[in-house]
Formats: sequence, C-alpha cells, structure tokens
Amino acid sequence: MTTQTKTITIALDVMGGDFGPQTVLAGAEISRKRYPEIRYLLHGEEGAVAPELEKYDQLRTQSQFVPCDFSVPMDMKPSQALREGRRVSGMWKALESVKSGEAATMVSAGNTGALMAMSKFCLRMMPGIERPALAAVWPNLQGESIVLDVGATIGADADTLVDYALMGSAMARALFDIPRPRIGLLNIGVEEVKGLEEIRLAGSRLREIDLPGLEYSGFVEGDDLGKGGVDVVVTEGFTGNIALKSAEGTAKQVGSYLRDAMSRTLMARIGYVFAKQAFARLRDKMDPRKVNGAVFLGLNGVVIKSHGGADALGIASAIDVAHNMARNQLQQKIEADLDAARSAREEASIASRGDRS
Amino acid sequence: MTTQTKTITIALDVMGGDFGPQTVLAGAEISRKRYPEIRYLLHGEEGAVAPELEKYDQLRTQSQFVPCDFSVPMDMKPSQALREGRRVSGMWKALESVKSGEAATMVSAGNTGALMAMSKFCLRMMPGIERPALAAVWPNLQGESIVLDVGATIGADADTLVDYALMGSAMARALFDIPRPRIGLLNIGVEEVKGLEEIRLAGSRLREIDLPGLEYSGFVEGDDLGKGGVDVVVTEGFTGNIALKSAEGTAKQVGSYLRDAMSRTLMARIGYVFAKQAFARLRDKMDPRKVNGAVFLGLNGVVIKSHGGADALGIASAIDVAHNMARNQLQQKIEADLDAARSAREEASIASRGDRS
Repeated sequence: MTTQTKTITIALDVMGGDFGPQTVLAGAEISRKRYPEIRYLLHGEEGAVAPELEKYDQLRTQSQFVPCDFSVPMDMKPSQALREGRRVSGMWKALESVKSGEAATMVSAGNTGALMAMSKFCLRMMPGIERPALAAVWPNLQGESIVLDVGATIGADADTLVDYALMGSAMARALFDIPRPRIGLLNIGVEEVKGLEEIRLAGSRLREIDLPGLEYSGFVEGDDLGKGGVDVVVTEGFTGNIALKSAEGTAKQVGSYLRDAMSRTLMARIGYVFAKQAFARLRDKMDPRKVNGAVFLGLNGVVIKSHGGADALGIASAIDVAHNMARNQLQQKIEADLDAARSAREEASIASRGDRS
Repeated sequence: MTTQTKTITIALDVMGGDFGPQTVLAGAEISRKRYPEIRYLLHGEEGAVAPELEKYDQLRTQSQFVPCDFSVPMDMKPSQALREGRRVSGMWKALESVKSGEAATMVSAGNTGALMAMSKFCLRMMPGIERPALAAVWPNLQGESIVLDVGATIGADADTLVDYALMGSAMARALFDIPRPRIGLLNIGVEEVKGLEEIRLAGSRLREIDLPGLEYSGFVEGDDLGKGGVDVVVTEGFTGNIALKSAEGTAKQVGSYLRDAMSRTLMARIGYVFAKQAFARLRDKMDPRKVNGAVFLGLNGVVIKSHGGADALGIASAIDVAHNMARNQLQQKIEADLDAARSAREEASIASRGDRS
C-alpha cells in the first residue's frame, strides 16, 4: 500500500529520559529499521547528540538534526520548565515542529509535567476540548484495550468523559484497526454506591450518541481491565493512574512470586530448565517495554510520552506508537469524530426543540 | 495465654452468600477446628439451616441457632432490604447480637449494599465518624498491608481520610501485631498534578498528629500496593475499589498467561511436572480465598464482609479475620485511638489559642 511507504516525519526530544541521547538514538535506530519510511527531526544539544549520532550512519542521513540550547531536567517543575524552556528547549522545538506541520508527531521520554504544560501551551487544546487525557495501551486476556485518562488531568465531568470516549475510540480505530470500538466506563459495582453522578450522566449521554465509529457497552469494573471485553476504557485521570500502577505493581509482584517459587527447590529448578522457553515467552508477553508509549489526546497534534526510564527497546515501542498514529491519521480521525458528535448533538437538540414547538 | 482460650462469640449470617447455609456452615466448621474457642450464633431460616447443621455434631453443640423468618436476596436493593429485612432477617439479627454485646463480631457473605445499610442503621456510626470504610488485607512483596476504603463510600474529604488512617492503623496493630503501623496516602506522582487538595490536606494533618500508634510515611502510588513499604494505605472508596479489582484482574491475567505458557509445548509440560509443587505453592500464595474477609470500620461494632462467591475455605478466612479482630479487641483499639487523636487535636488548638493570647 502506498500509504505505508510514504515518508513519516517524527520529531524526537533526544535529550529527554533518564538515559539521554544514547538511549533515545538507539531506540530511534530500532524503529527506523522496522519502519524505513520514518524520518526524524532530532531535537537536542549539539555537544550531547553529535557524538552519539556518529554511531548511526543511516539514521544520520535519514534525519535532520535541530540544535537547541536548553534541555528540561527530569525533576524541574512544569512552571519553571515553561519559563526557562519555552522556545529554546528541544522539547519545545519538537512540539513546534508538530505545530508547523513539519513533523506528524513527536516523542519525548522527558519530564511528564513539563511535556504536558508545554504541549498545552505550544499546541493548544482542540476546539471544544478543555482538558487533555493520557491514553495507554493496556494488554488484556482478549488482546488490548486503550485506557484513558491515566493521569493527565485530575477530575472529569460528564462532558469530559464523553470527549475521552470519542478520542479513545478514534485511537482504537487507528491503532487496532477495528471499525466500531466498544467503549466501557470504569465504575464500581457495589449496589448502593452505584457510582458517581458524572459517570452515570456520561453513560446516558454515550447511550444517546449515535455514531458509526463508537459502540457504548456500559459500565466496566476494575477487574475488567485485565479480562478485556471492551476496546476503550474511559475514566478520570486520578483513578486511571492508580489503576494502571496498581496493575503494573501486581504484575511485578506475581512475577517475583513466580521467580521465588521456581528457584526454591531442586525439582522446581529442573522444571525451570525444561520450561525455559515457556518462561521466556511469558516474560516477553509481560515485558512492560512493549507497551511503552502513552498518547496525549485533545491537543492540536499528537504527542507521545515514553516512560522516562525506558531503555532503547522501550523508546522504540513509543516511536512505533507514534508511527502508527501518524500513518493512521489519528489526529484527523479525532477531529472528524468530535465534529460528527457535535453535529449529532446539535441536530438532536434542534429536533427536540422542534418536537416541543 | 488466657486471652486466647477465652470463648469468642461470632454471629453468622448463615443465609448469606451465593451458596447459602451449606457453604457458610462448612466454613464455620473449618474455623471452629482452627480456633476451638469460637462459639457461633447462627442466624438463619430453620428449614434451610437445620438439615445442614445436622452434619456437624460439635459445631451444633458449640453454637446457638437463632431462627429468623426472612433472608435478604443477593440482588435486593439496599433500601428494600432495609424495609423488608429490618428486625426479621438473619442479617439484621446477627447485627443486633453485636449491638447487644452477645456477639463480638458478625460475618456475612450476603448482599454488600444491604449489609452496609443495615449495619449503619442497626449499629450506627461511631461518634465523630461520618462514613464507614471497607478495609481489605492486601498481600504485597514485603508481607501484607491494610487498604481502605475499598468501596464503602464514594468520595472522602481530608477529615475522613484522617479518620480512615486512624482506624486502619488500629486494625493493623490488631491484625499484624505491630506497635506503630506506617501509614501511606494513595496519590499520583506526576509533577504538575500532585494530587487532590483533600489528599494534600490529609497529609499535612497526619504529619501533625503525634500519636504513639501511628507513623505517617507520606504519599504512596499505585505500584506501592504490590511492592509494600507501608502497613496501611489510605484512599477514597471509589479509587480503592478500582485499585483492588484492577490488581485482582491482573493477578488472574498473569495466572492465565502462565497456564497458557506451561501447556503450550512438550518441554514446558515436562517442566511443569517437575515444578508441580512449586506451582502449587504459587497457586496457594495467590489464592484469593486466603485473603477473603473485608472489615467495615467506623461502626459501633465490627462487621466482616465475605465475598458472596466464597466457598467454605473463603468463608473460613473471613471468620478467621473476625476471630482475630475480636481477640485483639479491634473496636476498643479504634475507639481509644480516635479519642486520643481528638484530645491531641483539642490540646493543640488550646495551646495555639494560648500562644496567641
């Protein structure tokens, strides 16, 4: 297909992340080999980037290096990062290249708070969207789902949850290639505390929305995140962040129990030798690096956040997500969906006024 | 020790749970064998309970059967359960026996919403406590912690979170036998969204509280639930419920990946045979039945909620928790702690008035 071989330009914040240019460039090289159509805009400080870039001939010729004078430290407060890093930092310049259309998306493993603040400031929110959401890909027993918001914004009213649902379904169509993603609203199931008012309200609004690219499936609970069953799980950012980290912590915990059990007795160690490949496959399946790369949604441009502690493979996963989003025109899909939802809402309101008159 | 051999009376809602009297009594028998000092008040309908009770000679002689005319269905709305089941249901009568002091605690695997509504109505909230919390025992890599609220109440202001911390630390001292439990407040770590105002406020209040039986350790994140590091994790009920179920779902998911990996190839199946005991130990360690039994805190009496779907072993775990709470005088500890915290607060306020005059 011709769309797959068209050049896709991705802006990289080369200075971001706990391990800096060495790791970011190694990750960039992995993704470039996977997707030769990728071209990079490499934003970073010349002294730090140039020597590393020397190592990769083809990456260097397929990329454009854009020097900057400042890099946002991982622990700098967002407000300070914005004051000091605006216009001059690699992070900002990478965002600017998305804004100008030079790059289709940008990837940063840098300071999350600074990235969010700069993204909002540089790219601005999409018309009608008030607050950004961070969307993560969550593996489950039936495949994968998109969960949002996992921590961009604390608190969400019904309208915001509906916006998240629309943006999440656009992302699911772009990433998983399913025509009509099923949407679930995260809630708790105990009878008398049947959830927050805004979640109930968001549910009834989603039920009313009649869009070809979205199917509202109702409430889901915390254990459905691992079970699967819907393609998009919508929740407010505080809860989403706690749920994500709680799941990550549990996966590590079980992995640790397993290692412990398999090394405790001679028989277990013998068993481990036989089942070595199976364990390798399991480790691979549970490798958090493979699902690295969360997406900031709601901005005028797609911004991909990698874990700060990601190694080269993790960075490559985040770049792969960026590539996928760009190739499948996520931003355009989201814009079209939000427009369609808005028109549908207006038509419904005109119709209901007509009914009453 | 004499306290361990003193009779402990536990009221049982025999009709509660998905599997009814047969399972509840089988669980009661398991716990009775573990702790011969337990004496039961068995609340249930005669026609359903009597034939089952016939099976257990010693349980029968060590228990008192209290007949009732009504059992709350698992799917009945709390308001209706309260209307129809008040005074006449086994659930209510079990609560009444706690209120009268006949029983030290009560255990129900019945309708959660109904149990909470009836508990509040029958036992009333403790003085100064506005909303109940459901506390769960959460296994982690360093041992166990108590997490509350896991779904009794949606939303919590700073004062409520502080109350949860006090009640949770009393429970940790009773259950884990540690003199000064470490308390963590569940929060999210992204820089610019450093958490909700009420959590920050609760944090500064906990830092000020100077009580011998409580040590405030600061914020913890979702992944710390599995990692461990504090003895009590305090959170609002909606988030706590999602975190708990998200972790349960992930544990099941990893277990399923593991089963799949171990059965896929011949080598893996051979390895499984060798490591069979190790896997059995792992299964045992991850057995959710072993941590069954959440505790409603904040009422004038200790109420233990078992999973509705618990089997006999699960019911026994919940009864064990009840036994432990009663033997260690949880309710008295909570009352003493809340009193001490209140006095400390009053003294501090008198002192600060004195300073100003």
